[in-house]
Formats: sequence, structure tokens, C-alpha cells
Amino acid sequence: MSLFRLIPDRPDVVQDQNRPDEKGTFREWLYITIFQATTTAGKIFDIGLFMLILSNIALLMLESVESLAVKHATLFRILDYFFLVLFSIEYLLRLYCVRSAKRYATSFYGIIDLLAILPSYMEFFYPQWHVFMIVRSFRLLRIFRIFRMVRFLDESRVLMFALIRGFRKIIVFLFFVVLLAIFLGSLMYVVEFQHNPGFHSIPQSIYWAIVTITTVGYGDVAPATALGKVIASFIMILGYSIIAVPTGIMSASVIQEEKRNRGKRCPHCHVGGHGSDALYCRNCGEPLKTD
Amino acid sequence: MSLFRLIPDRPDVVQDQNRPDEKGTFREWLYITIFQATTTAGKIFDIGLFMLILSNIALLMLESVESLAVKHATLFRILDYFFLVLFSIEYLLRLYCVRSAKRYATSFYGIIDLLAILPSYMEFFYPQWHVFMIVRSFRLLRIFRIFRMVRFLDESRVLMFALIRGFRKIIVFLFFVVLLAIFLGSLMYVVEFQHNPGFHSIPQSIYWAIVTITTVGYGDVAPATALGKVIASFIMILGYSIIAVPTGIMSASVIQEEKRNRGKRCPHCHVGGHGSDALYCRNCGEPLKTD
Amino acid sequence: MSLFRLIPDRPDVVQDQNRPDEKGTFREWLYITIFQATTTAGKIFDIGLFMLILSNIALLMLESVESLAVKHATLFRILDYFFLVLFSIEYLLRLYCVRSAKRYATSFYGIIDLLAILPSYMEFFYPQWHVFMIVRSFRLLRIFRIFRMVRFLDESRVLMFALIRGFRKIIVFLFFVVLLAIFLGSLMYVVEFQHNPGFHSIPQSIYWAIVTITTVGYGDVAPATALGKVIASFIMILGYSIIAVPTGIMSASVIQEEKRNRGKRCPHCHVGGHGSDALYCRNCGEPLKTD
Amino acid sequence: MSLFRLIPDRPDVVQDQNRPDEKGTFREWLYITIFQATTTAGKIFDIGLFMLILSNIALLMLESVESLAVKHATLFRILDYFFLVLFSIEYLLRLYCVRSAKRYATSFYGIIDLLAILPSYMEFFYPQWHVFMIVRSFRLLRIFRIFRMVRFLDESRVLMFALIRGFRKIIVFLFFVVLLAIFLGSLMYVVEFQHNPGFHSIPQSIYWAIVTITTVGYGDVAPATALGKVIASFIMILGYSIIAVPTGIMSASVIQEEKRNRGKRCPHCHVGGHGSDALYCRNCGEPLKTD
Repeated sequence: MSLFRLIPDRPDVVQDQNRPDEKGTFREWLYITIFQATTTAGKIFDIGLFMLILSNIALLMLESVESLAVKHATLFRILDYFFLVLFSIEYLLRLYCVRSAKRYATSFYGIIDLLAILPSYMEFFYPQWHVFMIVRSFRLLRIFRIFRMVRFLDESRVLMFALIRGFRKIIVFLFFVVLLAIFLGSLMYVVEFQHNPGFHSIPQSIYWAIVTITTVGYGDVAPATALGKVIASFIMILGYSIIAVPTGIMSASVIQEEKRNRGKRCPHCHVGGHGSDALYCRNCGEPLKTD
Repeated sequence: MSLFRLIPDRPDVVQDQNRPDEKGTFREWLYITIFQATTTAGKIFDIGLFMLILSNIALLMLESVESLAVKHATLFRILDYFFLVLFSIEYLLRLYCVRSAKRYATSFYGIIDLLAILPSYMEFFYPQWHVFMIVRSFRLLRIFRIFRMVRFLDESRVLMFALIRGFRKIIVFLFFVVLLAIFLGSLMYVVEFQHNPGFHSIPQSIYWAIVTITTVGYGDVAPATALGKVIASFIMILGYSIIAVPTGIMSASVIQEEKRNRGKRCPHCHVGGHGSDALYCRNCGEPLKTD
Repeated sequence: MSLFRLIPDRPDVVQDQNRPDEKGTFREWLYITIFQATTTAGKIFDIGLFMLILSNIALLMLESVESLAVKHATLFRILDYFFLVLFSIEYLLRLYCVRSAKRYATSFYGIIDLLAILPSYMEFFYPQWHVFMIVRSFRLLRIFRIFRMVRFLDESRVLMFALIRGFRKIIVFLFFVVLLAIFLGSLMYVVEFQHNPGFHSIPQSIYWAIVTITTVGYGDVAPATALGKVIASFIMILGYSIIAVPTGIMSASVIQEEKRNRGKRCPHCHVGGHGSDALYCRNCGEPLKTD
Repeated sequence: MSLFRLIPDRPDVVQDQNRPDEKGTFREWLYITIFQATTTAGKIFDIGLFMLILSNIALLMLESVESLAVKHATLFRILDYFFLVLFSIEYLLRLYCVRSAKRYATSFYGIIDLLAILPSYMEFFYPQWHVFMIVRSFRLLRIFRIFRMVRFLDESRVLMFALIRGFRKIIVFLFFVVLLAIFLGSLMYVVEFQHNPGFHSIPQSIYWAIVTITTVGYGDVAPATALGKVIASFIMILGYSIIAVPTGIMSASVIQEEKRNRGKRCPHCHVGGHGSDALYCRNCGEPLKTD
């Protein structure tokens, strides 16, 4: 409960300001159903939209497989039109039910919803665009809608809260990693570039350094000289060790976050951190109220 | 002890309901020996079965090595029959000693035990099936029996308990990772598909994104364009950082789990899990003795 | 505040001893602006220098891409001179405003600042040196200046503090990892060297062992024999497990570091870092106010 | 101090029982110097031996590089003899100064010390053995002596203690990982073996599964079919997630270990966990004794 207050759910607040004034009308009912998940109809709408977006993304994937695209061209075309019509209706309904259509249309999710349908209409009028997968891949942006729905799960709230707490520290850490990669990548370039075509430029060497520090290790570029291998070994061991840093930060974040959620406070001595099944205060022995 | 109560060991409870009524008979003795590990005979049976399953799996592995399969064909055939007879006897004994044979036969382990022997009989009658390794690999399912035995170790109980606690959060985390992989994989497809045969379709690009985010990095697919390498570097650093999230969750789980196990027990109500600085029992309010 | 005292910021102390005696002069103002970030002018100077160093490094990277180097040769030459002049002026100003020019010139950052410009002058007089990227890459050393600026962020202070605390333990851990890599690498050499050209010498095998233990896994060298694969599997599982060790160390460090920062402060002696359940100051014994 | 009691340093105890009876003789002085590191002479001996073992291992590595071995054959031969003589003298001295030479000779370190020199003598008498690197690599076993010396560092004691605490849980975890690798490897074999020569047998597929679960990812074997890639993606995400388990275990171990070392107890209220710089009890305000 209190977490709702701790995470200021800004996008919602913005959209709630967009709720139509008249109470009890169809338009308000539509607004609650489409933009909120508090009523049964709203939950059904959210789950249905979730399924449709996932199906549409699955369709997009299958269309990109050339053998399938050639074989089932007509089926794919029909399904494309089907989703286009559905998402267009959804977009129009959203525009209709909000208080200010302009405010919705210029919001983050409004733009994403538009971008997911607009390019398909352009394809309709300029068929030669059809070859550009790029146009169609705008639909993928709707994945953000899913991210947003999932955010309401309890678990993702704790996770996100831990992420927000640790975020700044992790950004600083990543900045150090990138500086390190620049430095070590350039060093490897100096050592290897005359002997190894894989290290043909500094950006390429930095790419290799990132591949190595993060322990991904594709192997498309690998050191060839003895000195290069020594430096590479050092970089690997470094990457292997410093992965401990974000992990430590995140562990501390999650532990603290859980502590905060867990502890009831004693009404007498105000000692907190009691387990969720504690009945008496561990400090003064007075009973704890259960709520 | 109390952990036995905390983890409701359902499969056992189900099978204990399947214990024959008559006490002190051979059938009951057989039931205790085969299904439980409380008596010496039961422990010997469990360890023997453990060895036999492992040997059978080892045999299955060696049979799959073609050079060995050709060389020792007769030996493998004899050993196959030997294990088939043994496991058939075991299955019949299990059917015999339970109160309701049907209940066992339709339980999870009953089906696994059957699947481990049935296909071998079919091979016997339809020798042409022999070529299908798939049929024989059903035996591998018996590995679940080993998983189940191992579960009784104290260490695996703590582990499993920590896993159960962190499970939902990790599932939510993995869902985010998969969504990220879909998004970033599609992005890479758009960037690379015209220059790099490795990114020939979106599913393939998502496969590559998962290989990269998880820091596995086979290198069978690697970015070729400059922009692709920049995005790949970003994905690697992302994967390197977000591995901290499940780790943090799990660390918090294990630390809390250990705290619970470690705590002093109340001399009155025998409830444990008090913090190291608790003075009074959190369950009954009586003072805890310090030792 | 107290952290400033805990981390003895040696380079600063050294340079503050280098502050010119006369107060209120241009020379002192210059010193404060260039060497410190306490005034507005100082902050602008720091951010400007930060940008220039990053631009110079970006330039260095682009120059290393041969196609670009050939195409924009004149532009690169002009930009090279531009940065050379700027950094030379900066170096001279630094020499001018400190109390003892010699002390600055022989300090760590003084040498780095000189190395970043000196080789470019040599290139000027001996143009045939130009081919050596190595000479120009000395400029990269200025990245240390950026490291030093970033250090003043709050987040990087906590990080660095956790690193310092865990440093010795991680060094011991890495020493064990290197000994393990030597041992396992030599073992693999003995097993593989007659069958696999990838394991042609012990140093090469140790390189492979480090690639494997750190889970980088380039795949440029991979075991070929059955026994080699068994040993490799063991090394991988080992590496996968022992990554937990630095992570655990770092988690403990960060958690403790955060605890220290979080604690209430004593209203009497202003000592912080009390546990969340402390009632009395751990330094002077006075009761802590609860808020 | 108390840690000495907590870790029963068995090898030492055994060897201390091996201390010669006579006090103040040269033989006892030799024993203390060679087997213990309490006196200055003993420390010098330990550090000298450490250097010699490392040099000998470095020599072994360089000898394995064929180009060097051919070029400096005579130098390598002389250095080999030099180390052989030194280590032989050391072995004889060890035999001489212990109370029971037999007990030393049959101890773990006694056997290692013998194995490090014996094969070189055999090479001397049977020169054709010289080709076998295997014989010479026995010297590497002396690396265990270094491990043992390093054990006396404070940091490695905390590390080792955390390792011992977490050891059983990690073993159980690794057993699960190996069972998983067997199961998933066999599954991949069934899916891929008809389409992909990389999955030619079950052991090979299990090797691939271990490479994938541990996120090493050599790329020497990679899935080729669509279903194989889906399963591989699942295995990667699994491996990426379950690495959190040993990490969590180890984090909990290290944190608990540090807590144990850190906390002074209050002599009045027996509350522990005080920071190392606490002067007064945080629970009752009474002064803590500093020791």
C-alpha cells in the first residue's frame, strides 16, 4: 500500500488528470476500462490487449523469416490488416474517451500507439515501402505497453524499487567500465594492430575490450601476440572481479528494500524489524498489533 | 525438524496415503523399504537404485558414441536387457506393495517409472525402432528420481527454500529479460539484416540477443556494422549489469533464510528464528535465555 | 563530510601544499580555478577540460580508422594542432600558478599532462614518427584526469570505499585464481598438447584456462580430446562457482558501507553509523534521540 | 587469534607432533626455520622457497615453448640441474630435521616434495623420458606449498572460512547443475543429432550444455535447428539466473563471517555486534572493554 505512495506513478497521474469530467457516462466507463485496471472490464481489456500485442509481435517475427513470408504471403497480409483495424479502433477509442485528446496524443504512450499504426497506413498508400522491415518494426514499440502493465505486479515493484535505489551507483560503475574499456581497448590496439587484422582500429579494439570485460567473449576478435594475450588475461580477470561491484550494490539494495517492507514496529518501544509472524516485541516483550 | 513442516513434502504425503493397511506384513515392509528412506533396508535400496539409474544413464551416453556402439554392440545389448529386467521388477514391486496400484501408476513418479521401461519393450517387438535414440532417452527421465532423493539433504532444503522465496521475483525478472531480448533483437535485425547473413530473421536476432545478454557469447553470430557493434556493446554492458538483479534477490533470500534457521529457540514455545539481539520471544513474549 | 577524512585524498593534499602563498592575486585565482572545483569558474574549467579530453580521445579513435584517416587527413591534422595548442597552454598555466613548478612537473598528474603533449611535438620535428600510433596514444593517459574528476561524485565515493574495503580480499582471491589457472592450464597442456595445436605451450594453455575460468570463452582455443573436455567442464563449473566469492565479498562490503552511512548521528559527539536498533551512542554512551 | 582455534590447522598440528624432542639444538632450529614461519629465519626461508618454486614453474612454462626450448637448450638444462640440486637438498633437510622421517615422507606435503624431484632423477637415468613433459610437470604440484603459505594471510583465512561454511551448499548446488546439464544435454542431443555434427553423441552434448549453462560459450558447438535454438535460449537464461544461487550462498557466508569477527560483546548486557570502534554498549550504555 505505502509503496504506491513511495513510487510516484507519474504516467498514471498524468492520465488521471485526463479523466473526463462527467461521471457515470459511457465515456467515463470507457476511460476507466481502457486506461485503468481497477474494474473487471478494465482487467479483461488489459489482458486482451496484452495478448493482441504479443500476437502482433509474434506475427512480425514470423514475417521476417523469408521462407514463411513467401509461402503464406496472403495469410500474413490478411492478419496485418486485421491487427491494423483493431489497433486503429483502440487508438480512436483512446482519443475519444480522454478529456483532452491532444494531451493524450502528445503523451509518451500516445505517440507509441500512433507509431504502431501510422507506418502500416503509409505502406498501404506507398506499397513500395513494404520492403522496409524498419517501417513495420515500429509496432514493436508497443512492447512498452506490456512493460507498463507488468509494472503493477508486486514482485516487479520491489525489483524496480531496488533498481531505482541502486541506479545511480550502477550508472557511475558503468561509466568507469566504459572508461576502462576505452583505455584497455586502445592499449590493445597499440599492442596488436600491426600483427592482427582483428584490431584494425581503436573503436574496434574498444568493442573487443567490452566483449572481454563483460565476459561475453564472442571470439570473432581474439589476441594473437604473446603480450596481447597477457593483457587480455588481465582484462578477463578484471572483468571477472568487477562484476562483483554491481552485484554487491544490488544485493544491498534488495536486502534493504525487503527489510523496509518486512518490519512491523513495536507500539511501545518503537523497535522495528520484527518478522512478519512476530506477535510480541523482541525488545520489550509487549504485544505487537496485527494489521 | 520444523523445516519438515515448513516444506509440505506433498509427493511423500500422497504416497504415504498409499501405504497398505495391514501392519507388519511383508508387503508393508516392502513399501517402507521402497518408498521411504527411514529404515536401513530403505536406505540401501535408495542408494542401490541411485547407482543403477546413474549406471543406466552412463550406458545410454556411451551407446550414443557411434564408435563404441559399433564395437561393443553385443555387450550394450546384454546390459540393456539387464537394466530392463531390473527396472521392470522394481516397477512391478512398486505396483504390488502400494495400497492402490492405480494411484501409483497415475502419479508423476509412476508415469516416469513406466516411461523408463515401456519404450525398451516396444523396441523389443519393433526392432526397427531401435534406430531412434529418442525412444531410449526416455530412461533419462528417471533422473528426476535422483533429484527427489537429493532433496532430502539438509543443504538442498535450504537452497530450495531460498529458491522458492526468490522464485516469483526471478520469474518477473526473466520476463523482463525476455522482453528486452525481443526488443533489442528486433532492433539489431533492423540494423544488420541487409549487411550480415547472421541476422537473417527476427527470431534469429532474438536468439543472438539472448546469447549476448546472458554473456554466453558463442560467436556463431556477431555484429558486422559499426552501428551494430555499438548496440551490441550496449547490450553486453546491460547484460553484465542486470545479472546483479537475480543475484541480489537470491543473496537477500539466502541471508534471510539463514537468519531464520540460526535464531535461538524459545524455551517455552520452541519457536525459533529470533534475531541475534532479541531479548523476548517474538511468539509468546517470554524472556529468552542467553547462552 | 567525515568521508573526506576517511579517504585521505592524497593527490589533493599534495597539490594544496603547492598553492601559491600570496592571497587574492590572479595567480591564486588561477590555481583555485585549475586545481580545485570549489568555485564556479573552477567547475566550468573542469567540465570544459572533461569535454576537451573526451573530444581528443574521440579524435584519436577516428584517426585510427584508416578509411577516415585517408579521407579527412587535413581536417585531422588541423584538429590535432588545435588540441596540441590548447593542452600546451593548459600545461604552461598549471606550471605558472603552482608554488613549486618542479613539484607539479614531477607529480603523477604532471607527468601525465606532459606525456599527453610531448610526443605530438616530437611528431612535429620528426614527421616520420607520425606512423606510430603508439606515440599519439599517450594522450589517452589523460583519461586518468577524468577518473579523478568523477571521483568527486557521491556515488563513486561509496563505490570506491567499498572497493578499498574489499580490495585486499579480492587480491588474495585473484592470486588463488591465477595459481589455479597455472595449475589447470598446465594440466590441460599435458592432456592436449599432442592432439591439439591450440595447446602448443604451457603459457598458451594458461591463457586458455583464464579464458575458461572467467567464463569469457572466446573459442579460439577449445579442447579436442575426451579427457580434455571432461577437465574443461570441471574448470567451467569451477569458474562458474568461484565467481560467487568476490561477489560475496563485495556484497558484504557494500552492505556494511551503506549501514555506516545510514546510521543515526549522536546529538552529543556527532559520531554516526549506529545500528538501526541502537539506543545509546556507541562512542560516548549518551542516549540517542529516536526520530 | 581465536580464528586459529576455529580453523583446526591439521597439517601443522601433525607436523608439530613431528618436532624433534631435543630443545635448542641445530636440528630443532632447522625444524622451526623450515616448517614454521614464526622466526625471522623461518620467514626468510618461506619467502625464498616461494620465489624458487615460482621461478621453477616459470622455467617449466618457458621450456614448453618449442622455439625457446630449441634455442636455449643448454641454459634450460643447467637451470634444471640447479633447481634439482636445491630442491633435493631441501628434501633431505626436511627428512633430517623432523622427529620421524617416515611420518614426513608419507604425509601429503612429503609426497609432493618427493614427486617434484623424483621424476627429474629418472629423466637423468632414462634420457629418452625427457620428451615427456608429463614427467616434468610433476614439479607443478609444489604450487600446493604456495597455496599453503598464502593460507596464513588474514584475508585468505576469512575467505577460506567463508568457503568452508558455504562449501556443502555449493557442492549440492553443483550436483544439481551437473544433473541439469546431463538432462538438457541429452535433450539437445535428441533434437540436434540428425542435423548438426557438433552434437554427435550424448557426452558431447552434455559438454555443450555445461559450456552454455556456465555462460562460457566457446562457440565450437552451437545449435543449428530452430527448436535447438529455442532450447539453447532457455538453457542460457537458466544459467544466467542460477548463477545467483552460489553467489547468494557466498554473500551470506561472508557477511556472517564478518559479523562474527567484528562484534565485541557488552560485558553487562551481553549484546554483541558492536562496531570495532564502539566504546559503549549500544543497548545499555555501559562502557565496553577494549582488548
